[in-house]
Amino acid sequence: MYHKNMKPAAQNFNAARVASYLVAFLADEFKKANYRCALVGVSGGLDSAVVVNLCARALGPANTFGIILPYRETARVTLDHAYLVARSSGIRYMKIDISRQVDEYFRNFPQADRVRIGNKIARERMAVLYDLSRHFHALVVGTSNKSERYLGYGTLYGDLACALNPVGDIYKTEMYPLAEYLKVPSEVIKKAPSAELWPGQTDEGELGLSYTEIDAVLQAYVDRKIPPEEIVRTTGLKEEVVRRIVEIVKKTEFKRRLPLVALIPSEIKYSR
Amino acid sequence: MYHKNMKPAAQNFNAARVASYLVAFLADEFKKANYRCALVGVSGGLDSAVVVNLCARALGPANTFGIILPYRETARVTLDHAYLVARSSGIRYMKIDISRQVDEYFRNFPQADRVRIGNKIARERMAVLYDLSRHFHALVVGTSNKSERYLGYGTLYGDLACALNPVGDIYKTEMYPLAEYLKVPSEVIKKAPSAELWPGQTDEGELGLSYTEIDAVLQAYVDRKIPPEEIVRTTGLKEEVVRRIVEIVKKTEFKRRLPLVALIPSEIKYSR
Repeated sequence: MYHKNMKPAAQNFNAARVASYLVAFLADEFKKANYRCALVGVSGGLDSAVVVNLCARALGPANTFGIILPYRETARVTLDHAYLVARSSGIRYMKIDISRQVDEYFRNFPQADRVRIGNKIARERMAVLYDLSRHFHALVVGTSNKSERYLGYGTLYGDLACALNPVGDIYKTEMYPLAEYLKVPSEVIKKAPSAELWPGQTDEGELGLSYTEIDAVLQAYVDRKIPPEEIVRTTGLKEEVVRRIVEIVKKTEFKRRLPLVALIPSEIKYSR
Repeated sequence: MYHKNMKPAAQNFNAARVASYLVAFLADEFKKANYRCALVGVSGGLDSAVVVNLCARALGPANTFGIILPYRETARVTLDHAYLVARSSGIRYMKIDISRQVDEYFRNFPQADRVRIGNKIARERMAVLYDLSRHFHALVVGTSNKSERYLGYGTLYGDLACALNPVGDIYKTEMYPLAEYLKVPSEVIKKAPSAELWPGQTDEGELGLSYTEIDAVLQAYVDRKIPPEEIVRTTGLKEEVVRRIVEIVKKTEFKRRLPLVALIPSEIKYSR
């Protein structure tokens, strides 16, 4: 059973074919890049559980490193789920607590809000994963799903950073059948999606939108390039919901782009 | 006087026109993004000094924040140069020492080599700049020049990370006349380029190549798309030097790209 009424955006999502496509993708890209090992930040959530299982199938569990990076406020149950994912998939894993280095920085800014702290945590995790990827000669594999990527619901140069991402084209509602197919532990599948930015936080609560709505709109707007007005007409979703999601996609475009480099026309650069 | 015989790759580099083009670029992009303030990591080196001066001209010194982020091993003279750049340009500036949080992490890995430490420092600086950019409602402006970008001589998701970069199309040898034009303090212009990864380190010493060679090859290979054999023939540079530079450009392509997302053909994703 999935969390609540989390239904895939498309009824005919084929988890088995997607899984074998992604396993082949990973095997192929690692070979091309001349790497044997993958390194994944394991949060205890669904997305990293799926990625860990895909890597274990593509590269072997012994070549998959799961890194568990709790912060002081990480809930006990979240940490337990991370260990459960690591153990049940047979991968190698280790834990590094990042509390001290994050807290050390915020001694400069005791008034920092939870968004600043959450972003700093995400970037510290990225920096640790990249450091360990050098240590273990591994590639950092990302875990941001398509819903998160298009909503910009993640930290730039934090959890959005990776060498390659096998689940970036899979909507959150599609991650559920994929996770079931891959035999992700049911405790992890059943709980509410949360970025764990603070105790009790849920993605849907914070966004004020359900993933069922989000994915229906994204699939129409991003995949099928249907204009917002027509999405309202064909889906029966509220105009306000559609407009809000489309606005978020536009406003977060900078998170899906390379830095803007000033390109200087050569007639300006090289002229007397 | 520039450092040693640092000659621009092209004799007709026009510093005045480039400066005014980049000032207009910055003013324009900040307006489009609806930001008034820039945030720049000030290292004490030439590139960040140029960027600070460009931002101060485009947005005003009061809207330009220079952040000085020394590590325990940062040389006294480097820190002095950073203050000199900040003071002489009239910008606002502050210092945050990042030693404690970096050292806190490496208590887990006392054997870490200087490359790992250098990369962690670069990513910690990025995380601090991004945190402060939120605090001050500013955009992070990058300082990687074209030579560094094409050699991949920088840390991915570290100093290479930014919202926009005014000097990414300017070769290192071209940064000198630009810095002189912008009246960057001569102490900063005269010293040898260094990533300051360890005491006494210089870019050219570490790379085993001079920027004069590097830029001659990059300009032929990247800008004019001349094949390596022809570059050897026309420039008179050693075949080994040309081949090595071209190889570095190819091997570091991943640093100039977005993460690779697995795109799933819809006939695979949605099928019975």
